Amino acid sequence: MARKESAAVPVKDSKVMVIGGASLVGSATVEELLSRGATQVVIYDNLSFDGEANIAHLKGDPRVKVVQGDILKLHQLLAATEGLDGIVHLAAFMTLNFDRDPWGGIDVNIRGLQNVLEACRANRVKKLVFASSNAVYGYGHGVKGDLVEDTPFHAAGAPPAAILYGASKIMGEQLCRDAHRKHGQDYVVLRYSTVYGERQHYRAANALYIVETHDAIKRGERPKVIGDGSETKHFVYVGDLARANCMALEAPATDVAVNTSGPAPVTTLELVTLVAELTGRPDLKAELVQPDPTKVRLTSGGAFTIVHKAAKDAIGWEPQVDMREGLRRLLAWRDASLTNAG
Amino acid sequence: MARKESAAVPVKDSKVMVIGGASLVGSATVEELLSRGATQVVIYDNLSFDGEANIAHLKGDPRVKVVQGDILKLHQLLAATEGLDGIVHLAAFMTLNFDRDPWGGIDVNIRGLQNVLEACRANRVKKLVFASSNAVYGYGHGVKGDLVEDTPFHAAGAPPAAILYGASKIMGEQLCRDAHRKHGQDYVVLRYSTVYGERQHYRAANALYIVETHDAIKRGERPKVIGDGSETKHFVYVGDLARANCMALEAPATDVAVNTSGPAPVTTLELVTLVAELTGRPDLKAELVQPDPTKVRLTSGGAFTIVHKAAKDAIGWEPQVDMREGLRRLLAWRDASLTNAG
Repeated sequence: MARKESAAVPVKDSKVMVIGGASLVGSATVEELLSRGATQVVIYDNLSFDGEANIAHLKGDPRVKVVQGDILKLHQLLAATEGLDGIVHLAAFMTLNFDRDPWGGIDVNIRGLQNVLEACRANRVKKLVFASSNAVYGYGHGVKGDLVEDTPFHAAGAPPAAILYGASKIMGEQLCRDAHRKHGQDYVVLRYSTVYGERQHYRAANALYIVETHDAIKRGERPKVIGDGSETKHFVYVGDLARANCMALEAPATDVAVNTSGPAPVTTLELVTLVAELTGRPDLKAELVQPDPTKVRLTSGGAFTIVHKAAKDAIGWEPQVDMREGLRRLLAWRDASLTNAG
Repeated sequence: MARKESAAVPVKDSKVMVIGGASLVGSATVEELLSRGATQVVIYDNLSFDGEANIAHLKGDPRVKVVQGDILKLHQLLAATEGLDGIVHLAAFMTLNFDRDPWGGIDVNIRGLQNVLEACRANRVKKLVFASSNAVYGYGHGVKGDLVEDTPFHAAGAPPAAILYGASKIMGEQLCRDAHRKHGQDYVVLRYSTVYGERQHYRAANALYIVETHDAIKRGERPKVIGDGSETKHFVYVGDLARANCMALEAPATDVAVNTSGPAPVTTLELVTLVAELTGRPDLKAELVQPDPTKVRLTSGGAFTIVHKAAKDAIGWEPQVDMREGLRRLLAWRDASLTNAG
């Protein structure tokens, strides 16, 4: 393929579709695209889970179009992608869902992405941003220290669902590379670390530490930490990812995969303590419990940092919201939601 | 699930199906199963490639049944797996085919295996032997030294097709683990290194060094080596793998993945020199050439050894045929085939 000079797709005056647009990251990304002046933002989503509630506040905007569609149906994708400038593809099974339904996970995470790539090619969509994950480094023994973009995938010692999820993201990244090599498809892969923020749900294994701690404290109970509390989690605030998605579209970069993680990792004990403090109950100290071997929880056991320097170099992105501020926003949203519901 | 005392499936007096049974490894495995006294051996194969020729010598045996079937069609698998004691599952897209058709590779290597697992469960097939690959360690930077069963997957620096193939085998292994955990399915995963032997074809990237060298020497040309010749390949003789497949069925072991590699690695220069010597033209010295960047060749660049100690511990297997003897058999078979064809 002849190389173009730049793969930049400015969001202003563009038409962009967000697949999985009614999700936690999707709804925040739609907001960010609108604030950057997109002329149309298509939310493509099967509207499972909390989808309707997540986008209720966006439906009044005349630039927003909602398509209830399935990425496993190529004809639906072909119809929805006509005339688009860019796509942010977020739809996926995460680890807990993969555990319940491996068929579904493989179909959505791999064949679904292949369908998106077919639709991009057929309708000449200039650029794709694909949401991958730091799960491409695995959750097995040996995941520690600085995780950079060429860190290998550690599988040994991890539960099948976690490995399947990580491997499905590895395959997704390679299908993007293959489409670039064979058809010149421009793309950027963002390897998200664990997301948290407003509209947080209960479906992400790592973020359960936040919502379950908050729930326990609301009930006046001590929050639980699995293991000795020294295990590392590296979160990223949802608004920072929404910016990363837009910056990946707008950057000249193509054919690259970069980490998008928050400012710094926390240990599970630090995280739970911080949630208790922000909830006004620093007296409710964490209780250390043994892991339940029948449940899938991502216990790497290691201490690691997901390095995001390459994202700065490739798309100019850095995280802006630290854990304390991000948690404050998440908890405020939860309190307001509970108040509204009550 | 309640744990059984042993997952052994003795081949004698058993019914075993070999999926991909008309392949290089498949045809040798069928021979080994017959020699161990199986009452029926079902060859399940789509009979693409050289399938018919590979099994022509087996069709006269009344214990052999050939089913032309597709592993993507679950109803065909369900019909073929009734009453079986064990399955050896070999059918897969390898790296070169994955490069030409990623859709096909993902479907066959992942969804195909899922279908096999569904059929095992539905028809209570006691044990599955699944052919994985040392590709689960990747072909990227950093693949060097001893490759053991918990070595991570190195993707950075490898072509997409090689990573897709390796990741598809990682997923396959995890689907086996998941079926064991959820339904008690007994299985053994064998991580084959590069296979060679009688009925060698042109579809395996690494084994091309043998057949292309042999062809060049027959034409009186110097054989070519890509790079400086120091790159390591670790082959395994097809007859040794046929034994490994049977021993994996017969061993009490279950829920385990082990390397099955030959006695020792060779460098590409040693390999090509050995082929020239065995062909009676030691005077035709290897010519070193630069890699063609448009072609997929698996150039890890590293020097590695695939350690097979765990296979000895789990299923009692060790390789018996060294490279010189295995190559002698392969070249004798090629010479006889060419003579017959001429």
